[in-house]
Amino acid sequence: MSLPKKVKMVEVGPRDGLQNEKREISIDTRIALIDKLSDSGLQFIEAGSFVSPKWVPQMAASEEVLAGIRRATGVCYSALTPNLKGYERALEAKADEVAVFGAASETFTQKNINCSIAESLERFRPLLDRAKADGIPARGYVSCVLGCPYEGEIDPAKVAEVSLALYEMGCYEISLGDTIGVGTPEAARRMTETVAARLPLEKLAVHFHDTYGQALANIYAVLQLGVAVVDSAVAGLGGCPYAKGASGNVASEDVLYLLNGLGIETGVDLHRLAEAGNFISAELGRESNSRVAKALAAN
Amino acid sequence: MSLPKKVKMVEVGPRDGLQNEKREISIDTRIALIDKLSDSGLQFIEAGSFVSPKWVPQMAASEEVLAGIRRATGVCYSALTPNLKGYERALEAKADEVAVFGAASETFTQKNINCSIAESLERFRPLLDRAKADGIPARGYVSCVLGCPYEGEIDPAKVAEVSLALYEMGCYEISLGDTIGVGTPEAARRMTETVAARLPLEKLAVHFHDTYGQALANIYAVLQLGVAVVDSAVAGLGGCPYAKGASGNVASEDVLYLLNGLGIETGVDLHRLAEAGNFISAELGRESNSRVAKALAAN
Repeated sequence: MSLPKKVKMVEVGPRDGLQNEKREISIDTRIALIDKLSDSGLQFIEAGSFVSPKWVPQMAASEEVLAGIRRATGVCYSALTPNLKGYERALEAKADEVAVFGAASETFTQKNINCSIAESLERFRPLLDRAKADGIPARGYVSCVLGCPYEGEIDPAKVAEVSLALYEMGCYEISLGDTIGVGTPEAARRMTETVAARLPLEKLAVHFHDTYGQALANIYAVLQLGVAVVDSAVAGLGGCPYAKGASGNVASEDVLYLLNGLGIETGVDLHRLAEAGNFISAELGRESNSRVAKALAAN
Repeated sequence: MSLPKKVKMVEVGPRDGLQNEKREISIDTRIALIDKLSDSGLQFIEAGSFVSPKWVPQMAASEEVLAGIRRATGVCYSALTPNLKGYERALEAKADEVAVFGAASETFTQKNINCSIAESLERFRPLLDRAKADGIPARGYVSCVLGCPYEGEIDPAKVAEVSLALYEMGCYEISLGDTIGVGTPEAARRMTETVAARLPLEKLAVHFHDTYGQALANIYAVLQLGVAVVDSAVAGLGGCPYAKGASGNVASEDVLYLLNGLGIETGVDLHRLAEAGNFISAELGRESNSRVAKALAAN
């Protein structure tokens, strides 16, 4: 039991969240959301994605988003970059940081990008080499860490192997994603311990989805191990692509309420964060997926 | 860290849940819900309340509900009883168990029933004496254990004092209620430890509301202490009377998913439980508040 004193909250709403929303979102709305998020005190905001708009139409024009935001002092605006071309676009758009996206499931990787995990990691090498040369920090995502829509359970050793590969290729932080939200606390703890046996715990982030309502319990479980980086999306933006109508990312407001209650420092203001979430929920024409936001609005 | 091997799930949906729902619910629907809940394997079901229908109209005719249900073998059907008159009605209706309801907040007790905590506890004495004489098990609820809508924070020592009083007056189990759902895991752990220093841990149940989305994390925190009785309401029935539109009881489906994931035995079938939740959600004309139910329905 050693809760961290501080947690770095990584806001993925404008990217992982919005890319899974159905309603079309204007560039101005994306910019306004990011500016409201930085106003809340968040210092790490995933602002866009330089993938092909054919695959992820919601993330088209990420250049314009990055050009339009008000760059707040000390805030890191990152972008997802699937390949060297995406990286170059991100660099051009002045992203402060880039992120690459791997998975711990062979079947998921095959179905998603039609290659093996090993091949997928090799494809990141030129990008990560360039980022290192350019002095651009790169973050690595590993998805399916607590379950795969095709394979079911995933061996934590596999998660550790993929995480270590990304770390050794130059990712300064590895975000462990329960992308389908099936995990429970002891599984989350065991998986994290297995990964932390191979690379430093302080290099690990968790990225839990709330599809089955378990995300906060899972986050609490890994905070007890000392994990000090948590990904979340304001208003619980984004659904689960494998379960239509189900919840996606854990809501940043709910994570912050938890961290505040645990006496863990974040530098983020709950009411301003909830404002950002209410703004984007209204733009999307739907209720917030954050229970905290709903409770605050009802009080 | 010592998770229990088995957990007793106490289903409060038909009482604590429905009494806070706005739409009128027929007696037949209440009966059908209870029968579906016992079909899922639940062995403790709070079936009704013998309070004045003037105060809690949703719980009127609890006699007819208890007379109409199919009494499944081994299932305990309990009822809330505010006083001796309510107790006699419950006994007449063949409730297997009764429950009394106290609070750990002086202000809440004053505003709610216009007396001090000490007076409120004394009022239960004749009821609890009668129950003991009749061989009817009595359960004690303590509300406001992690916060009060009027006082804010509540001293865990006060919770322990009220819990001990109810225990010494004859309650075989004390259910610790975060009735406004404001608690977070470390607060839940500290409060439970404080109470467990005064009366045996195995006599304690937790009753957490999910208003701020923290209930499962809080439950996980106290499971780690060895707490082995958890209250919940199917479909997350019931809202928060102090925050209209906010969530109420933690959803039984979400609790069961957590317990299953932790390898803790309950004897309850998740899919049958979710069916009961979907039934009552449809009757209420609204979405289930259970994330698990939504994810299962979406798959």
